[in-house]
Amino acid sequence: MRTTSVGVFKIATKGPGDVSGLMRLIEQGAIDPAAILAILGKTEGNGGVNDFTREYAVAALCAALAPKLGLMPEEVEQRIAFVMSGGTEGVLSPHITVFTRRQVEAPPAGISGKRLSIGMAQTRDLLPEELGRSAQITETAKAVKAAMDDAGITDTADVHFVQIKCPLLTSERVEAAAARGHKTATISAYSSMAYSRGASALGVALALGEIAADVRDEDVLRRYDLFSKVASTSSGIELMHNVVIVLGNSQSSASEFEIGHAVMNDAIDASAVTEALNSVGLSLGLGLGLGAQAKAGRELVNVFAKAEASPDGTVRGLRHTMLEDTDISSTRHARAAVGGLIGGLAGTGAVYVSGGAEHQGPAGGGPVAVIARLS
Amino acid sequence: MRTTSVGVFKIATKGPGDVSGLMRLIEQGAIDPAAILAILGKTEGNGGVNDFTREYAVAALCAALAPKLGLMPEEVEQRIAFVMSGGTEGVLSPHITVFTRRQVEAPPAGISGKRLSIGMAQTRDLLPEELGRSAQITETAKAVKAAMDDAGITDTADVHFVQIKCPLLTSERVEAAAARGHKTATISAYSSMAYSRGASALGVALALGEIAADVRDEDVLRRYDLFSKVASTSSGIELMHNVVIVLGNSQSSASEFEIGHAVMNDAIDASAVTEALNSVGLSLGLGLGLGAQAKAGRELVNVFAKAEASPDGTVRGLRHTMLEDTDISSTRHARAAVGGLIGGLAGTGAVYVSGGAEHQGPAGGGPVAVIARLS
Amino acid sequence: MRTTSVGVFKIATKGPGDVSGLMRLIEQGAIDPAAILAILGKTEGNGGVNDFTREYAVAALCAALAPKLGLMPEEVEQRIAFVMSGGTEGVLSPHITVFTRRQVEAPPAGISGKRLSIGMAQTRDLLPEELGRSAQITETAKAVKAAMDDAGITDTADVHFVQIKCPLLTSERVEAAAARGHKTATISAYSSMAYSRGASALGVALALGEIAADVRDEDVLRRYDLFSKVASTSSGIELMHNVVIVLGNSQSSASEFEIGHAVMNDAIDASAVTEALNSVGLSLGLGLGLGAQAKAGRELVNVFAKAEASPDGTVRGLRHTMLEDTDISSTRHARAAVGGLIGGLAGTGAVYVSGGAEHQGPAGGGPVAVIARLS
Amino acid sequence: MRTTSVGVFKIATKGPGDVSGLMRLIEQGAIDPAAILAILGKTEGNGGVNDFTREYAVAALCAALAPKLGLMPEEVEQRIAFVMSGGTEGVLSPHITVFTRRQVEAPPAGISGKRLSIGMAQTRDLLPEELGRSAQITETAKAVKAAMDDAGITDTADVHFVQIKCPLLTSERVEAAAARGHKTATISAYSSMAYSRGASALGVALALGEIAADVRDEDVLRRYDLFSKVASTSSGIELMHNVVIVLGNSQSSASEFEIGHAVMNDAIDASAVTEALNSVGLSLGLGLGLGAQAKAGRELVNVFAKAEASPDGTVRGLRHTMLEDTDISSTRHARAAVGGLIGGLAGTGAVYVSGGAEHQGPAGGGPVAVIARLS
Repeated sequence: MRTTSVGVFKIATKGPGDVSGLMRLIEQGAIDPAAILAILGKTEGNGGVNDFTREYAVAALCAALAPKLGLMPEEVEQRIAFVMSGGTEGVLSPHITVFTRRQVEAPPAGISGKRLSIGMAQTRDLLPEELGRSAQITETAKAVKAAMDDAGITDTADVHFVQIKCPLLTSERVEAAAARGHKTATISAYSSMAYSRGASALGVALALGEIAADVRDEDVLRRYDLFSKVASTSSGIELMHNVVIVLGNSQSSASEFEIGHAVMNDAIDASAVTEALNSVGLSLGLGLGLGAQAKAGRELVNVFAKAEASPDGTVRGLRHTMLEDTDISSTRHARAAVGGLIGGLAGTGAVYVSGGAEHQGPAGGGPVAVIARLS
Repeated sequence: MRTTSVGVFKIATKGPGDVSGLMRLIEQGAIDPAAILAILGKTEGNGGVNDFTREYAVAALCAALAPKLGLMPEEVEQRIAFVMSGGTEGVLSPHITVFTRRQVEAPPAGISGKRLSIGMAQTRDLLPEELGRSAQITETAKAVKAAMDDAGITDTADVHFVQIKCPLLTSERVEAAAARGHKTATISAYSSMAYSRGASALGVALALGEIAADVRDEDVLRRYDLFSKVASTSSGIELMHNVVIVLGNSQSSASEFEIGHAVMNDAIDASAVTEALNSVGLSLGLGLGLGAQAKAGRELVNVFAKAEASPDGTVRGLRHTMLEDTDISSTRHARAAVGGLIGGLAGTGAVYVSGGAEHQGPAGGGPVAVIARLS
Repeated sequence: MRTTSVGVFKIATKGPGDVSGLMRLIEQGAIDPAAILAILGKTEGNGGVNDFTREYAVAALCAALAPKLGLMPEEVEQRIAFVMSGGTEGVLSPHITVFTRRQVEAPPAGISGKRLSIGMAQTRDLLPEELGRSAQITETAKAVKAAMDDAGITDTADVHFVQIKCPLLTSERVEAAAARGHKTATISAYSSMAYSRGASALGVALALGEIAADVRDEDVLRRYDLFSKVASTSSGIELMHNVVIVLGNSQSSASEFEIGHAVMNDAIDASAVTEALNSVGLSLGLGLGLGAQAKAGRELVNVFAKAEASPDGTVRGLRHTMLEDTDISSTRHARAAVGGLIGGLAGTGAVYVSGGAEHQGPAGGGPVAVIARLS
Repeated sequence: MRTTSVGVFKIATKGPGDVSGLMRLIEQGAIDPAAILAILGKTEGNGGVNDFTREYAVAALCAALAPKLGLMPEEVEQRIAFVMSGGTEGVLSPHITVFTRRQVEAPPAGISGKRLSIGMAQTRDLLPEELGRSAQITETAKAVKAAMDDAGITDTADVHFVQIKCPLLTSERVEAAAARGHKTATISAYSSMAYSRGASALGVALALGEIAADVRDEDVLRRYDLFSKVASTSSGIELMHNVVIVLGNSQSSASEFEIGHAVMNDAIDASAVTEALNSVGLSLGLGLGLGAQAKAGRELVNVFAKAEASPDGTVRGLRHTMLEDTDISSTRHARAAVGGLIGGLAGTGAVYVSGGAEHQGPAGGGPVAVIARLS
């Protein structure tokens, strides 16, 4: 019995503060603001510590949605999960993807197979000394399972993308732990972001059976052979718990969308991108122009991928210079290159390519998921 | 009668000053230094005005080759054409491509069809006021035809890549023109680089019949519908004439290499890259992993492409942010993105992707040529 | 008869969206929101085209002040002049300076001499084709005089800093002019910013008698010997008229502040900075540590300066590299260097140093104004 | 008895490969190439890992000096100490400073007091596991004393600037240590640069009695209250020992130069710069224009300073943004700001301001030395 319907809306933006596209769809009745569950966006910033486009975008969305939801702007962020990824290098085009979910009485006729489903859950508040360690891993794994339940997904093979927002350490948090006699995984705020992203990704891997249960504190940011093929994690200062968004396919969904994925083994893994597109019935149509997705009644909605500069300094044995560039951070290089490849194969630059892929896919690679609309 | 043999050697470098790979091949007898005609390289710099890796690389090569050629270092640059393209963004990997040419007595058996040929020519010294204008266009066209002759190519359809080095304006050159009562196309050194690149590319287009003979001064950097599909031009301060290198296929060549090309219509034109690979018998082998070029006895040597940020601010109707980024120049963005796409489809980051594509391919796109080795 | 009182509050910020310092002063009663006339700020961005910290800061301030003023957020910007200068390079520290003005019944005893006064005015809406040309110059000059009136300043020698917000061209505006048969000064949005800043600065110079009335269209961005010693202009997309803020000293002011200025002849003109500090009774106190402003009862509030890379590529005959750096824009270089000098002489990095100084001070230099509090 | 004469020549350069100024002075007989002991330079690069302007400048100087010295280019580097500091941000102007030393028979009449002296020494080769630890500290201290001897300096108070070149770790070196059963201070090449610089600076402090002998491995990069007021250290891949250059004043010198120094407590410490200038008889001449050094017969030659972004994120209690800027490295920010201050007070941008000041002056500050010529 199909009981939920998930909507996906990709909306181009004219700047980090531009909410006009979303507001128009709400005014036209295409989007019910009360049904919005999560918004993932690509904004214009550098994706680094001083990227203010992310918080600006969230502030603008909260201010615009608040009156539609009868909430104060600061309450909107409690209700909707916002994940903004800074950095639209190269052909990447700024946009937001809005996910909605609502109950349906009578599912539309003619739906067969599993369809796109979305579920959310969150961990308890984590202690500073738990970040980047087993506690964060196991708590995240529990939340992933809860989010799968929420999405009506029972088979881990039906999970195709798990987006997580996770906390980071600040000097106050480090000191609070020290005052209680505990040492944190790192004392650097910047490093703690990687630790938190890494442990969260390992939590996904644990929940989905991609790694064994014996993962240890010291494996985080070291054992890069341990990873999830569907995790995409980003850390932010505004929370102390993990928010987990599971995207997959479910029999309980009456959605007109479907999701699939593959894993890029390195930054030039065109086969994986092709495989991900094929997995939801999209073809490259090489003979006809790659942008034309030929299969009947299937249309690309968006691609979600993680990118990083290979930590060993090479791609297929050839030296890259991303890690030694003092002028451009390696995450900007990696997003530009992977964005160029995915943009070329998908036929559009409005794709979600995000940087920082610790334990998210193999070292130098990352997960790539695709959502298609079926007509 | 096949009378010349052209060699192509792609050599990875460890830095702009690294000549060890080339020296090793010379010492091993694989490369005869006296046969070297041209060296095209990708170096680590930013590709901008303050990119010193290009002149450093040339200086290091001249110093290393001088004793092998019995010349002073400064004489080497008169003998060999060096074209260094700065900027190895994303997956691009620093390397040089060495082109050699020698006469052959008895061509190897079993060669059929046209094979890789290289020819060079140069224009007379140009006056400062001629740069970026019809005089540079028509002089370049003459030199392209002379270089075709030198390469033994009679059919313009056999020309697949024309690399040009061209002059730029300095304040002294602008003043010299003014003293003779002439105004230059621009007084800015930086702008003059684009003018000179653009007029040189139009010269190629004119020679190859890609545009009509009535091209005017005011079309340069304005009529972007006028362009060459095989021109790749870069300007440098060290010369006042154009140096033209024609790469194509010829019956007179006994080379084991073949070249082909296509033109990218925009920065995500994966079809064009595929077409260029296919044109020399290389396939993507999508089912088998894209890096594996499956066709029997054919091996990728290098890809040569030009990239630029689309001047209208969009790629296939979607906004890009390359032109408004005050932190990263648009040429670095464009090389990173196009390098990611070509790297993915070719299965290697050691490809020659260069920025600044005025009148070289359509606006936002550019030529893409491929050299394959036949065994 | 002293009838107005002008307040100046310098408030450190923790980010472009941080309004907590201002809100605290309002809650404590130190600032009456209804009395706020203008807010000048330094934000963390790059100061370039893609600097979103400026609009984010304005949006955050409007959202926070709206309920205090009984206005909608978008109405706040009509009432208060916001001028955000992006770029806190080097020692520059993000902050805002809030200017208030109110009528006073009985001025405090013991005030003698002229005191800080502030006046505002605006031009009529300008046509696109008027930007960067005489029309903008003469309209600005009129508005400067109106703002002087508003400030109660009659002698041009009492004007020490004129901050202007001015429009820029967009492609729509260029086309609108073309449709009416008019050509704009430039068709590039980026260039139009410089034209608009330059013409606005010349308008200040005209109003204050610093240049003769015969200034012509073709002098803008060319005759750099024509400039104002007190103009500071910045262009923004959100308006089509010039907003003029005049800061000077007046007998009609009962303020506890005083303003003075000097003009830097180049980017290392320490004498001018010293002279500006001295002009309001502040000394460097070199023997005692430069940060300690020794003169009795005088305290530094803020320094306001414009900085730019000398267009001839040299500072006092020595080559600088700011204009050839493809990695860092010249405006960032210039703010960092001038901010270092002023920070050192003023003893604080919380100073307002802004880039882009066309016709604002001599080429390579710029105005420097200082506000001191008298106890 | 004055037995040595030290010469100092500051030569502007037109690019990292420009040796024309030095060659001219050699041809004119002003500089005897055989007398050159050391060359310190500021080059145009970013000062980071991918700054190739430093090695390019050294390669160009070696190639040019080799025939003058009857050596092969690679031998020149064994004979002359080259220290190139990349990064000419803001007003900093590219230049080299050439130090010469020769024996004199009869010193010129009229010399009194101590005069500029230069001495050099080097440590034994250090083991990878010794870098950044006590062994490097104590070996460096020994070399500093040897270099003082070489300079004819007996009183540590006469030492005003100690420039050191020191090794860094590579993965090969880390592995070599591991193979012998030893752990290095860090496994990151980038971090090892800071460790090596820091331990070398502590070695200077130890030799000069600025710190006690009980400094321990764990103090390096942690106890920032331990520092030298005259150390300036930079690490390079090309050596495994420390090269120490001591600059000070000595009775044995017949030089026409004198050196002095002070220590900047933070990046805006104008008092320290003034003190350093005063220490060699140079005044700011604030009344007359700061560039004019008024004292009779004294002329500024160069200023040598180290700059860094204060690690606590503030300058005199106010937040700076240098450490969170993903677009510009903090060392570039710091050089630009400190260069602006020193440039302003010294009246010239051709000063040597170098980044990375671990244990070189207090945290956020650094040493500043001045050389004056006496006529």
